[in-house]
Amino acid sequence: MAETALGTRERLVRTASRLMQHQGYENAPIKQIVRDAEATLGSLYHFFPGGKQELAVAAIRFGDQEFAELLRSGLDSREDAAEAVGAVAAQLAAALHTSQWADGCPVTATALETLDRLPDIQAACADAFHNWQNLVAEKLLAAGIAEPDARDLAVTVINTLEGAEMTSQVTRSQSPLLTAGRHLTRLVRSYY
Amino acid sequence: MAETALGTRERLVRTASRLMQHQGYENAPIKQIVRDAEATLGSLYHFFPGGKQELAVAAIRFGDQEFAELLRSGLDSREDAAEAVGAVAAQLAAALHTSQWADGCPVTATALETLDRLPDIQAACADAFHNWQNLVAEKLLAAGIAEPDARDLAVTVINTLEGAEMTSQVTRSQSPLLTAGRHLTRLVRSYY
Repeated sequence: MAETALGTRERLVRTASRLMQHQGYENAPIKQIVRDAEATLGSLYHFFPGGKQELAVAAIRFGDQEFAELLRSGLDSREDAAEAVGAVAAQLAAALHTSQWADGCPVTATALETLDRLPDIQAACADAFHNWQNLVAEKLLAAGIAEPDARDLAVTVINTLEGAEMTSQVTRSQSPLLTAGRHLTRLVRSYY
Repeated sequence: MAETALGTRERLVRTASRLMQHQGYENAPIKQIVRDAEATLGSLYHFFPGGKQELAVAAIRFGDQEFAELLRSGLDSREDAAEAVGAVAAQLAAALHTSQWADGCPVTATALETLDRLPDIQAACADAFHNWQNLVAEKLLAAGIAEPDARDLAVTVINTLEGAEMTSQVTRSQSPLLTAGRHLTRLVRSYY
């Protein structure tokens, strides 16, 4: 029983995350989430008494962790921090291509749509960006970059990857992300 | 008569642009566009027989030009190309703060929402990014940066500003944009 329950909750969260990644929060109708997750409205309100907003917060946290794993795998793939940042960009470009340019950032569309309106969702989006920045900062600190520089650089690394991912999606090309990777490698290397 | 007609068309385009900037394409209902523009549904279909999609293309083009003016003013404010790129970031940060974090990129939300679905709108979004890249590239070329490097750098400058603007909106802070400006200045300067 408990396992079935867990299965339904997870399906709801994963489905909401994917739909919000592709369509944003407003365009992910609760009926479609329930249908695609092979769940029922009753089960959705059982697990998420706060309804779509509460589910959306869980979905953003799921996307946060999913993207964090991608980041970790890229960062761990090279010992050199500057090269590692470039490797992250290349992995994102390859993954985007594989998904036919559909699987971009799991947070951006929702973050922009809910600005100044849905504080719980906004807070989850801000947490996600912060977590990703921390992962990059750890790698830069380990490379010997001083604390304030490493933290600042990590913010720009994530922002540049975010912007480049969006342009790669719109232009259906890996080039913006690969170019971002080369520039971020050069920028990071200039600090050690 | 002609001037009144022009006035209504312009009001529709400006209103659609602002609503799409804040809410994205799907969440900018045609009724709200018409009401906020003090127009009528009849006049909307008179000027845009293709309806909301055709209006959205005109709105993206308007946002493209509006952002291009901001970019030009920042780029022209400093003779040195590396400093000019930093000045653009600082101007965007100030404008975002003035608008209470509401007036971000006029294109991003719509670009993400219409991926793979509405090719005319996608093409207008891609044109906008391309135009902005060209403005930056001209400044870098004038500074003596070689052609391929200047073009590549311009892509990353726009992408980094895009990503940083979004994070500034979500965190309600100028800091991500100002940090991006410092890093872009450093990166550009390393090329001449």
